[in-house]
Amino acid sequence: MQSIVKYKEQIAEFIDSISLTGTPKELYDPISYILSLGGKQIRPVLTLMAADIFGIDSRKAIYAATAIELFHNFSLMHDDIMDDAPLRRGHQTVHEKWNVNTAILSGDAMLILAYQYFENYEPVIFRDLAKLFSKTAIEVCEGQQWDICFEERNDVAIPEYIQMIKFKTAVLVGAALKMGAIVAETTEDNANKIYDFGLNLGIAFQLQDDYLDAFGDEATFGKTIGGDILENKKTYLYLKALINGTDAQKEELEKFFSTTSCNDKQVKINRVKELFVETKSAEDSQKLIEEYTSIALRLLDEMDIAEEKKEQLRIFSNELMNRRV
Amino acid sequence: MQSIVKYKEQIAEFIDSISLTGTPKELYDPISYILSLGGKQIRPVLTLMAADIFGIDSRKAIYAATAIELFHNFSLMHDDIMDDAPLRRGHQTVHEKWNVNTAILSGDAMLILAYQYFENYEPVIFRDLAKLFSKTAIEVCEGQQWDICFEERNDVAIPEYIQMIKFKTAVLVGAALKMGAIVAETTEDNANKIYDFGLNLGIAFQLQDDYLDAFGDEATFGKTIGGDILENKKTYLYLKALINGTDAQKEELEKFFSTTSCNDKQVKINRVKELFVETKSAEDSQKLIEEYTSIALRLLDEMDIAEEKKEQLRIFSNELMNRRV
Repeated sequence: MQSIVKYKEQIAEFIDSISLTGTPKELYDPISYILSLGGKQIRPVLTLMAADIFGIDSRKAIYAATAIELFHNFSLMHDDIMDDAPLRRGHQTVHEKWNVNTAILSGDAMLILAYQYFENYEPVIFRDLAKLFSKTAIEVCEGQQWDICFEERNDVAIPEYIQMIKFKTAVLVGAALKMGAIVAETTEDNANKIYDFGLNLGIAFQLQDDYLDAFGDEATFGKTIGGDILENKKTYLYLKALINGTDAQKEELEKFFSTTSCNDKQVKINRVKELFVETKSAEDSQKLIEEYTSIALRLLDEMDIAEEKKEQLRIFSNELMNRRV
Repeated sequence: MQSIVKYKEQIAEFIDSISLTGTPKELYDPISYILSLGGKQIRPVLTLMAADIFGIDSRKAIYAATAIELFHNFSLMHDDIMDDAPLRRGHQTVHEKWNVNTAILSGDAMLILAYQYFENYEPVIFRDLAKLFSKTAIEVCEGQQWDICFEERNDVAIPEYIQMIKFKTAVLVGAALKMGAIVAETTEDNANKIYDFGLNLGIAFQLQDDYLDAFGDEATFGKTIGGDILENKKTYLYLKALINGTDAQKEELEKFFSTTSCNDKQVKINRVKELFVETKSAEDSQKLIEEYTSIALRLLDEMDIAEEKKEQLRIFSNELMNRRV
């Protein structure tokens, strides 16, 4: 089993070697640009790690890993247009640096390029990878659309929210792992279990992301604390606080979330966080994260692989949830 | 060999039967909407026709035909955003009826759905279809980007223009035919020849489209005559007129094309058309269309199929070029 650092090196080396010097350069430059911004590359690391775990040289899974990373960046490029985001990983977003049309078209090209990486495998593996990829990609689109719909709605139920983050985030984590399993030609049962492991870990990860956005440490979290609160994002913390809270707490929270203009941002952030604690939605969030994490770890126990390989995945899960990778 | 009407019925019936009742409906409704606007469905007809020509029941190619039609509509949905077009087939475009974000995301979903239709074939055919599809789709993106780039440039050479319409339009015609050939499992030589036939016919078709936009009959052409002239589109007619014309003609033409505001639109259209005739660019355009059409027909002659099947493709080409299908 190789270390995460080693996988990251393999990915960086391969992605650097991709020749995106095609023409017109207006189409390919934005793709090189967004890939050059780096990011944590958790998803392609998982693909390589899964290949390794199921007994093959992780380098055989590099094409599938690259497809996953291209897809992830395609979805960021299009989501950034939709969210009108000025920055991505501390740099200008593509639609800001170029324009919206360029970000649409280069994003489209990146989605197609992702599919092309599967052509490096023989027909049956190609078909299995492309099928999983398409199913996952459609679910990510559905998740993104649910997220947009929820912004307009005041009656989002918690199971709906969980379903949304499952589609928007978790299915790609599951698919990244399962792709490594497919390339390694492991048993269907192992492939399905590692998918479900990723799915549950992905949900836990996103819930943790929402939690850290309010209660995290700016230095390790890497984003400004309270961003979701200022944007009135209806995360689990908010939805659960409305359920748990008294009428007065509910009213106060809804008032805060009814406007984006506020005199003192820090006052809003601090008071909303207090409400999350007072209503125990912060506590419930932590419980739910533990629940999804333990489902993931239980699935891992059931897998038909050597104990040392399971341990590697446990270590990675732990590092991921503690934001050390 | 079935009639074109029969193919169109098969396509309409199949597309009507596609259940796009998935959720969220905000993602799927725009897809149902754009597909319901109809259009001529030339591309899927070609897929079914090719399957038939190479000796299998055309219905076996319906999934590949549907993928082609979905891809075509995906590219229209995204192109309409980029062109800020208010109407498509006489109805509101998706970004007008809904909004830009919806048109981006539903377009993305349509591209992915297209790939999913290939899953109905066994692995080797699936891989061959998806490979051709990805290559073609990337070329269409490149063609669209060239088209955007050319709007800003004043030095577009004719070979570059031909390359642009080849990628933006003709490769999909070639791919539609070749997909029918792949599903029918004909020889590689036949498959490549029908692709090249489609490629050359597609270029002829697009050049004819540009020609008819200026010199066609409004009733049969189906679009307002002179639209390209009013939009200052640098079509073959314009580029060739600049090459053929005297300094005075060139200057007059460039002056017309330097502004979109003009006192009398009909005066501009009429005078530009006169210039196209005077400089013989209209005549050269007709010659070039004939050239590409005869290359296409020569490739048809070389194919290893029965004479009656070749005749069907000849009839279709003729109907297509005369805008009767």
